[in-house]
Amino acid sequence: MLTPDRGLPMAWVQEGLPHQVRIYEVGPRDGLQAEAAIIPVEVKAEFVHRLVAAGLPAVELASFVSPKRVPQMADGADLLSRIDLTSGVRHPVLVPNRRGLDEAIAAGAREVAVFASVTESFSVANLGASRAEVSIEQSAVVRRALEAGLPVRGYLSMVFGDPWEGPVEIDEVVRAAVRLREMGAHSVSLGDTIGVATPEHVKAVVRRLVQDGIEVYRIALHPHDTYGQALANVYAALEVGVSEFDSSSGGLGGCPFALSATGNLATEDLVWMLRGLGIETGVDLYALVETSIWLAKYLGRNSPSRVVAALNN
Amino acid sequence: MLTPDRGLPMAWVQEGLPHQVRIYEVGPRDGLQAEAAIIPVEVKAEFVHRLVAAGLPAVELASFVSPKRVPQMADGADLLSRIDLTSGVRHPVLVPNRRGLDEAIAAGAREVAVFASVTESFSVANLGASRAEVSIEQSAVVRRALEAGLPVRGYLSMVFGDPWEGPVEIDEVVRAAVRLREMGAHSVSLGDTIGVATPEHVKAVVRRLVQDGIEVYRIALHPHDTYGQALANVYAALEVGVSEFDSSSGGLGGCPFALSATGNLATEDLVWMLRGLGIETGVDLYALVETSIWLAKYLGRNSPSRVVAALNN
Repeated sequence: MLTPDRGLPMAWVQEGLPHQVRIYEVGPRDGLQAEAAIIPVEVKAEFVHRLVAAGLPAVELASFVSPKRVPQMADGADLLSRIDLTSGVRHPVLVPNRRGLDEAIAAGAREVAVFASVTESFSVANLGASRAEVSIEQSAVVRRALEAGLPVRGYLSMVFGDPWEGPVEIDEVVRAAVRLREMGAHSVSLGDTIGVATPEHVKAVVRRLVQDGIEVYRIALHPHDTYGQALANVYAALEVGVSEFDSSSGGLGGCPFALSATGNLATEDLVWMLRGLGIETGVDLYALVETSIWLAKYLGRNSPSRVVAALNN
Repeated sequence: MLTPDRGLPMAWVQEGLPHQVRIYEVGPRDGLQAEAAIIPVEVKAEFVHRLVAAGLPAVELASFVSPKRVPQMADGADLLSRIDLTSGVRHPVLVPNRRGLDEAIAAGAREVAVFASVTESFSVANLGASRAEVSIEQSAVVRRALEAGLPVRGYLSMVFGDPWEGPVEIDEVVRAAVRLREMGAHSVSLGDTIGVATPEHVKAVVRRLVQDGIEVYRIALHPHDTYGQALANVYAALEVGVSEFDSSSGGLGGCPFALSATGNLATEDLVWMLRGLGIETGVDLYALVETSIWLAKYLGRNSPSRVVAALNN
């Protein structure tokens, strides 16, 4: 049983913060991709249905990558066939290359996402190609997607630090973000892949991007809670106008290829804070918590979300 | 082995935030008090020695409460006898009444802390007396402490919400804070006892207190991470000038008497953020993490600190 909320947290609306925030749910893709076990497609579909019923406006479904490299994502087309892709909820899928895009389109995808690394080291380690090589393939992917009428979301990895290179120059972030925008991506999600961002760093990056021509409504933050900083970083991003955040219900997942890259921000913890800030999300927190409890039971371990743990006491 | 830091997180100094922050470490008292087991005094002393060696400027040691009610704190005098109380590091002890104060003075304490509840419900439930009754005894305690030359820190519980009463009026917080200051407490620590504070709520309370005459350098925040909001709340408090924060190394503890009141903010997660903000604390993060790993091993369970978990991988 969930503890009733007694009107807590109170809502303290602040002028200057966005009135509405879009939560971009990555649990079914970024979360389940990091699971050692293969989750049956029926369970994934049930998970997505519950997330949609809880009011999430965007739920990323799958990644059309090599099933040899990421067997957790081999059932993408099957999953898409079980989801209503015309409900008005966005269901982007990740595509690394033209082959993946073709498969996604064949499976009925109506939006795709592409990802690039800000740093050369992670590009080679994770994508198996230099940034320049990735960029060439990506341009072709985005062009073809747009021609097919699919909007494209851009992801950037290692925006705030890199496990091999250490600090990352904001100039590099700007270059990578502008490249994605010039290709035609409608927005750029700033990935704190190893969780080393802190609030003023987030503000500095967002301010620089805006200054260099990326409109703030095109910027999303993809925080990781590796060092517990995710929600403080979200708050800082809100203060400079960011209104889209990537999170994973129950805190599922991370990136299995990045050194110590654990811990997506739990959607529940994000929704709790936004509720306290009086910011609309359209998400039913309690339905979401029930979903995470259900999935945690299936996976056989506790959710790292503080809200899930507290409300499940 | 701790993962080397590669210069991460980067320090992003922001004008307008405090340049220095005092961390008020509550692990040995607030943390160990919440443990079901009784920790031997030798282990507590070793814990305190390690915290002091890690550079913490204030380490609360004990609570001189009824040993029947809180057996975990029965060895306060013994613990104090094992600590150098003249090192320059502050070592306050909690005293609920005159008897406790006398015991603390006899044990050599050089600073004490008193605590009051903002809400009537928690006062009765936790302190066993109405706010008015607590206030009368507390006035006598503070007077006697100041006469004996001991500075007094004031704690307020249930500042941001109460498990029985729900929302808490800021007017009530102001009344309770002013009362503590008028008694002679040098500062007031705002306790988010059940963890329901969110960033703009923290700012609203701090701004109101300052407006009503409590200088900002006399305000500390005692956040709880029950719903994952602690560090976002710290960042918000920094933005309105708060420069003292209560935390517990390794995230030890909480309040055993308050419904779902779990989760002190882990000192390591706080130090990580402050380091990213370029704010001086004087604390050696790695020595602190080693200490929490050592204590977690002794207690036989993992630390809830994200930083401890990440660096201990």
